[in-house]
Amino acid sequence: MKHVVVTSDPHQLFDSRPTFSHVASVMGSSRIIMTSGQVGVDEFGRTPEDVQEQMTVAYASLRRCLEAAGATVKDIIKLVYYIVDYDPQNRKHVEPLVAFLKGHRPATTLVPVPCLARPHFKFEVEAYVAIPQQPTKEVDVVVVGAGLSGLKTAYDLQKSGFSVAVVEARDRVGGKTWSVEQTAGDGKFVDRGAAWINDTNQSEVFALSQALGLKLVVQNTTGNIVQQDQNASISQFPYGSVPAGLAIAGGVDDMVALRDATEAACQALDIRDPVRTGGHLDTMTFEQWIKSVGGGATALASATVWTRAMLGMEPRDCSALFFLNYCKSGGGLLQMRSDQKNGGQYLRFERGTQSLSIGLAALLKEDTLLLSSPVRSITQTDGGNARVVSARGDFVAKHVVVSVPTPLYKEIHFEPPLPAAKAALANLNKLGFINKVIVRYDRPWWRESGLCGMLQSFVQAGPVSVTRDSSVDAKGQFSLTCFCAGEAGKAYSKLTKDARFKAVVEQVKATLGAGLPASSIPSPIGFEEHEWSNDQWAQGCPCPAAPPGAMTQYENALRTAHGKVHFVGTETAYEWKGYMDGALRSGIRGAEEVTRVLSTPKL
Amino acid sequence: MKHVVVTSDPHQLFDSRPTFSHVASVMGSSRIIMTSGQVGVDEFGRTPEDVQEQMTVAYASLRRCLEAAGATVKDIIKLVYYIVDYDPQNRKHVEPLVAFLKGHRPATTLVPVPCLARPHFKFEVEAYVAIPQQPTKEVDVVVVGAGLSGLKTAYDLQKSGFSVAVVEARDRVGGKTWSVEQTAGDGKFVDRGAAWINDTNQSEVFALSQALGLKLVVQNTTGNIVQQDQNASISQFPYGSVPAGLAIAGGVDDMVALRDATEAACQALDIRDPVRTGGHLDTMTFEQWIKSVGGGATALASATVWTRAMLGMEPRDCSALFFLNYCKSGGGLLQMRSDQKNGGQYLRFERGTQSLSIGLAALLKEDTLLLSSPVRSITQTDGGNARVVSARGDFVAKHVVVSVPTPLYKEIHFEPPLPAAKAALANLNKLGFINKVIVRYDRPWWRESGLCGMLQSFVQAGPVSVTRDSSVDAKGQFSLTCFCAGEAGKAYSKLTKDARFKAVVEQVKATLGAGLPASSIPSPIGFEEHEWSNDQWAQGCPCPAAPPGAMTQYENALRTAHGKVHFVGTETAYEWKGYMDGALRSGIRGAEEVTRVLSTPKL
Repeated sequence: MKHVVVTSDPHQLFDSRPTFSHVASVMGSSRIIMTSGQVGVDEFGRTPEDVQEQMTVAYASLRRCLEAAGATVKDIIKLVYYIVDYDPQNRKHVEPLVAFLKGHRPATTLVPVPCLARPHFKFEVEAYVAIPQQPTKEVDVVVVGAGLSGLKTAYDLQKSGFSVAVVEARDRVGGKTWSVEQTAGDGKFVDRGAAWINDTNQSEVFALSQALGLKLVVQNTTGNIVQQDQNASISQFPYGSVPAGLAIAGGVDDMVALRDATEAACQALDIRDPVRTGGHLDTMTFEQWIKSVGGGATALASATVWTRAMLGMEPRDCSALFFLNYCKSGGGLLQMRSDQKNGGQYLRFERGTQSLSIGLAALLKEDTLLLSSPVRSITQTDGGNARVVSARGDFVAKHVVVSVPTPLYKEIHFEPPLPAAKAALANLNKLGFINKVIVRYDRPWWRESGLCGMLQSFVQAGPVSVTRDSSVDAKGQFSLTCFCAGEAGKAYSKLTKDARFKAVVEQVKATLGAGLPASSIPSPIGFEEHEWSNDQWAQGCPCPAAPPGAMTQYENALRTAHGKVHFVGTETAYEWKGYMDGALRSGIRGAEEVTRVLSTPKL
Repeated sequence: MKHVVVTSDPHQLFDSRPTFSHVASVMGSSRIIMTSGQVGVDEFGRTPEDVQEQMTVAYASLRRCLEAAGATVKDIIKLVYYIVDYDPQNRKHVEPLVAFLKGHRPATTLVPVPCLARPHFKFEVEAYVAIPQQPTKEVDVVVVGAGLSGLKTAYDLQKSGFSVAVVEARDRVGGKTWSVEQTAGDGKFVDRGAAWINDTNQSEVFALSQALGLKLVVQNTTGNIVQQDQNASISQFPYGSVPAGLAIAGGVDDMVALRDATEAACQALDIRDPVRTGGHLDTMTFEQWIKSVGGGATALASATVWTRAMLGMEPRDCSALFFLNYCKSGGGLLQMRSDQKNGGQYLRFERGTQSLSIGLAALLKEDTLLLSSPVRSITQTDGGNARVVSARGDFVAKHVVVSVPTPLYKEIHFEPPLPAAKAALANLNKLGFINKVIVRYDRPWWRESGLCGMLQSFVQAGPVSVTRDSSVDAKGQFSLTCFCAGEAGKAYSKLTKDARFKAVVEQVKATLGAGLPASSIPSPIGFEEHEWSNDQWAQGCPCPAAPPGAMTQYENALRTAHGKVHFVGTETAYEWKGYMDGALRSGIRGAEEVTRVLSTPKL
């Protein structure tokens, strides 16, 4: 990512280090971005008392403004900050400022003020930003988004001989495949997003993994699952069976009955036409459906584990048809939830799933990718080419393929506007809340007491609903991946980082570590988390879900093109919707769709 | 007019509606404009006490800054405003801000401050602006200004096969032809600027009106003129005659003698060479000349009505030669002042005179016009083409035709600079002050008592010197057009809008309504005014006038080209200078001038 801001200090002006420069110059072609003054108000509308904490929050908001505009801290040419009750003897602003700037030194002005817009605001900061512009580029196809679906579309189109540009909002490829090492270069990857594939019915993603020569790891299912019941009591049962007993009398039967009813109902659906085969299921939420088939409290608790882990939602948050069709897209509830052969969670990647995206991106022609460049408008004029405006450059293209989730269509200005049905999908489909919290240990201590590392918690407040062993033994990487999702995840996200860490570790100790002497449970050596709902370019994960009625009315518009603009993404897949395999399949479909039109001779 | 500012609110930042956005990005090619902080100081240096009134004045000034730069509120990317004694519990700034922004939401910062540059300033606002740039365009001729003279030049040049761009500062065509409806679409037009033509000696404008199929209205001269004397006493006399008696003994004779002397003096001039034929008249003001021919107080009062209505000036403000030559250009004083056949005010337009400009503009080739784009520089390099820099795009042209009034040459940077004589014209010629105030009524009540609707007032302070019936009976549009001009107009303009309205209506009642029972004078149903002196792109009206000596020295430079830059505009016409017919004639001359040069084979 190139920057165009050159800072300098004129000869004989006083020393401006470490936080600013006397002059910032915009070099080369650029676009100017302005931010509003950012204050210490967090996403929940809370303002900390402490001025330094306000600064930290304000800088986080400013960073978010930069990200939304496709800019980074290094693109800032000017910072102005306003401080209430400023004391020149006690320069509290320096430390948070240094942490924000990380060595960048824009032109800066500090303005002491008597107050700010609201009585409790003590700090405000605004930025002037210049981002470099590449010249307008003409290509056959612009792909918006460099997640797996977009990359696959681009790769297939290039193979067919078309010129393609992939424009990505983030500063990396991969979308919701995002793998991070414990320390740079140590090879101890964990996945903050998508993690599992299989080598049978997920044929597309498996084929890609083989083509790229990526090493896979079989998910550990040796040992017991830990069951945390509604009343927080702990029991164990072998992977592949069900608990011997549960807190509520008849709970096991209740749970099994729902599982079987769900499996039967989803198997009755045709994933190519779910509305025709299951239209009645779209008149109610999944929770209403559970009750309609006689599901009790334990069944609902069990279903809550499913929807939280699979969609980041409660059973009441999506249409029954949506959930059942989602299961069917992965072969059914049992197969989708299985960690074994043919199941949704059978294999992991030694270097994380992002290695798929990185590998696919590396196969694209040189200069195909433009990163950190959110697309903000797609204009189609009568009969002519489409114009794609992104933060770091514009494109003129014969066709455009949009690979972002439906709710994010709202981030792009379409001209002419999206048809009503497409706009309705963008408004009605909702992304769930999943925070995948990964706790690293120096050894897989849970295996020592015969556990496979899976926890299934019926405690409504969680915070963890499910854990899985996400270790890569060959690399000495040992971790538990904990799903803090749905309402439990949302409540958890309001805690401070320290409190979140503590809550997860305590729940792991109380469940997987139940009955063990404290000394045999090692302290964590690392803690990774990512709030996908808070992520500018995800706004949730893994896949948007529809409320009752939405599929009946609008599902037919999910894959239709809007003039020269086509739509891919895992949610548009028929098979393995919401999974990496579905993403690749949608990319194949998108490339075929465009190839067909571009190859048809014009009359 | 396309805008390039894209505003956005990053995911999960607090709600910024209705007044701002968290981020404003400049998309596409643009120019950046900065304004100084604007405060609540009006054109007369007055600052209101009330902070909200200061805000309204400051926003008006800011709007003027934007206009001068060729920008609009929608081009603002960032607003910063400073408020003294800001009270977060009483957010007085919101209402004026909302009124200013009209739905646009730029990035914004509010800065409470202890004080501002002057003790009484309570509010200051500054803007950062980006205006879209069209790519540089190459044409044969750029015409600067889309008033009648510029449009005519462009039309004639296009007819001769040349490529032409017309670049206009305003967001509309027509210059001082500007017609507005009472409510959009009701067809009840009044003219804020030029209003009258005739169908005989104004052959160019009449021919255009016929070519465009525009409906004309004969000016009403049936009935009495009302005379308001120096002492405010009221009398009447039939249109076409003179008052029976006036306040000052011998006044009628004094007035008639001056009228006849003026007519004789102007008829002695050669409009193609006024200096040769009347050089001695350029050594004195018109007032001095009046005295030199024995004019008394009544003659001067009468002459004041002429110069106010014809030039927006007092008789002391212009050279006698200028005024007499101006009269002669319209066939003489009597013809120019006549509202009947062959006179200057014989016919009006059912849809206003702007229909001439709109009609002419519609005959231009597609993409000829660039609106809201003031030209700020015209550069001629040795032997090469001229470069015209305007707010929304640059032009490279073989020739340039400037159609703005001479005093407005100062708004354009010429490189090489204008020759001394041309620059002197720009400095010496002055635009007068006319506020045409149009009072709408539901019926032409003045006709009911046998009046034609004309008032001639000798009251020095006015505010109204002359009125005319400007009704369009066929459309049910009834109005009196009141000329508040010269010193009387300037004093009037310092009143508040309510006070101005009241002053005009009271004077109309006291003159045209003299002796009528109050109940038979209806209340106005509308009030239109436009202070042409206050207008960024007019700076006065109708036509610049020369002080003594200026014509003798510089009149020969009025129509000469400056290299490849040519000059048109109604003041450069020989016939009907200051009128629409003169504007068209100057356009014809300009197009011929350029055609001649462009058609001459280069050796």
